[in-house]
Amino acid sequence: MKVLVSTSPFGAIDRRPRELLEAAGISYTVNTYGRKMREDELAELIPDVDVLIAGTEQISNVVLTKANKLRLICRVGIGLDSVDLIEAERKGVRVSYTPDAPSAAVVDLTLGMMFSLMRSTHLANLKMHEGQWTRFFGKRLVESTIGIIGVGRIGSKVTDSLVNLGCKEILLHDLERKAAWQNKENVTWASKDQILGMADLVSVHVPRTVDTVGMIGAREIALMKDDSFLVNTARGGIVDEDALAEALIGNKLAGAAVDVFESEPYSGKLTEIDQCFLTSHMGSMSLDCRARMEIEATEEAERWIKGAALRQPVPEFEYEMRRVEQRESNKHG
Amino acid sequence: MKVLVSTSPFGAIDRRPRELLEAAGISYTVNTYGRKMREDELAELIPDVDVLIAGTEQISNVVLTKANKLRLICRVGIGLDSVDLIEAERKGVRVSYTPDAPSAAVVDLTLGMMFSLMRSTHLANLKMHEGQWTRFFGKRLVESTIGIIGVGRIGSKVTDSLVNLGCKEILLHDLERKAAWQNKENVTWASKDQILGMADLVSVHVPRTVDTVGMIGAREIALMKDDSFLVNTARGGIVDEDALAEALIGNKLAGAAVDVFESEPYSGKLTEIDQCFLTSHMGSMSLDCRARMEIEATEEAERWIKGAALRQPVPEFEYEMRRVEQRESNKHG
Repeated sequence: MKVLVSTSPFGAIDRRPRELLEAAGISYTVNTYGRKMREDELAELIPDVDVLIAGTEQISNVVLTKANKLRLICRVGIGLDSVDLIEAERKGVRVSYTPDAPSAAVVDLTLGMMFSLMRSTHLANLKMHEGQWTRFFGKRLVESTIGIIGVGRIGSKVTDSLVNLGCKEILLHDLERKAAWQNKENVTWASKDQILGMADLVSVHVPRTVDTVGMIGAREIALMKDDSFLVNTARGGIVDEDALAEALIGNKLAGAAVDVFESEPYSGKLTEIDQCFLTSHMGSMSLDCRARMEIEATEEAERWIKGAALRQPVPEFEYEMRRVEQRESNKHG
Repeated sequence: MKVLVSTSPFGAIDRRPRELLEAAGISYTVNTYGRKMREDELAELIPDVDVLIAGTEQISNVVLTKANKLRLICRVGIGLDSVDLIEAERKGVRVSYTPDAPSAAVVDLTLGMMFSLMRSTHLANLKMHEGQWTRFFGKRLVESTIGIIGVGRIGSKVTDSLVNLGCKEILLHDLERKAAWQNKENVTWASKDQILGMADLVSVHVPRTVDTVGMIGAREIALMKDDSFLVNTARGGIVDEDALAEALIGNKLAGAAVDVFESEPYSGKLTEIDQCFLTSHMGSMSLDCRARMEIEATEEAERWIKGAALRQPVPEFEYEMRRVEQRESNKHG
């Protein structure tokens, strides 16, 4: 069994993933580029590989065509945009991932952005570094109405933290109402449009699917209060970047925070708007979460090599979603 | 009785302070400059005034010399740097303030800064607005060791929030150990130097006194871990600005957040250091806290005019501190 670790860095923050492989006597090679591998680089190495421990590098049709021995891809992380799931399935390559590991880090990023937006501290910091002393009034987070759209792994943890901080009013929306948040003080279920109209700050925590792309566009922003804020730490494209830029420029919104973009690295219009708090897809980038992601992916590889069942296989609905997308695209193409 | 409201704005966020005065039939005039009044402007108006509802404008010896009718100063806020307490006492002018009202807003500012520092989001935002996509690894706040120096009105509320967020280890220091934080899980009392050596992030919440000025200087920063952070939302001068700048430039500290400065508006060295998160003395600047400060100061004025006792007179130790400072300065001058 030959394992290729294509993600980079690996075992740098915490040596445990390497130790796990070594203790299990599994021979492995690691990405030596010190950066995300290109498709051609991965395609060159893949023919010998049985198990791939992967980052966000493209595991495309081109790569999979050459992957004659490959039986398992363990994604270090949650996103599957980089993996051609349909082709992997066709070739009998299993795919597992680590969907829970990054959540806590994304929650911290989101909370920090919420506190900053409510008080314009991101803006004050920009001004101060330009030599300008500008003082901004703001609102207290816990005295505000916070709307959470998407109450899954991350949205529910954000809600937990807001409740623990004593937040006065939290409005939740999801495809189905989660029992944990029924009849909870200060927490109310509402429709997406109700939330948009009522919240002082709306934070989006849905996965990227055909249904969620552009889910917050010009129509939705128009429903929001002029002095409200929007946060997207979920996935690029869920908030329409052009509509957001237009709203911020026209003072239709007081500000926004965005960590994820339709195309990354991002260098578009939002970078010219001071009220927009921008980070570079750093949601999962806390050292403890990165270590946990690497360990979980490595444990999954080891488990499978030893003949045990996968603990975190990519669920069937992810494959189904791809099939639907493929059918749609064939139809329109 | 003639009331002058020298603070600005007043009754703008919330009309209640004006309504209180009107309902009580108290005649008042308001600062018409729309900005902080200068010493000479205040000196010109003061001779007619019985009660002053004041912001941070200088109520100096020059002003007080002309204040022949003045009997009460109600400070909208907590800082007393602007008031010549000794001269006020000598002339029999009472001084009251609103020490609790701004606390919650300062806590929010502090928490936001902590989240930002731990993940370098303030830095990512600067880079993004310069067109650079730079990704930073960080730590989770709740997985870190947080040191709180000064556990009074604000420090204790910051500790509360950190406990509620599930923070793993909080180290506290104050002149005396507060009962509320004895034997509390994850909370430990420690010496100042222990905290500096152990914490991933140190936040200072002490008042400005002769003992606290320069309390975090080069010696103290040298004790801190190279990958740690420092937050000052308390008062300017408590953290030595030159020592901090030098430490940040030399990578002796990973970053800092500063809201208060020795001289304001601030435009010094720290504005050139990207790892330094800077805001412009915005701690108390949440709309609800500002309204509460104005209301409390107005209620105090009304109470006194009606012959009742002051509820929030400036305590004796503030006067004593000034006397000590004056003696020291006479000795050295």
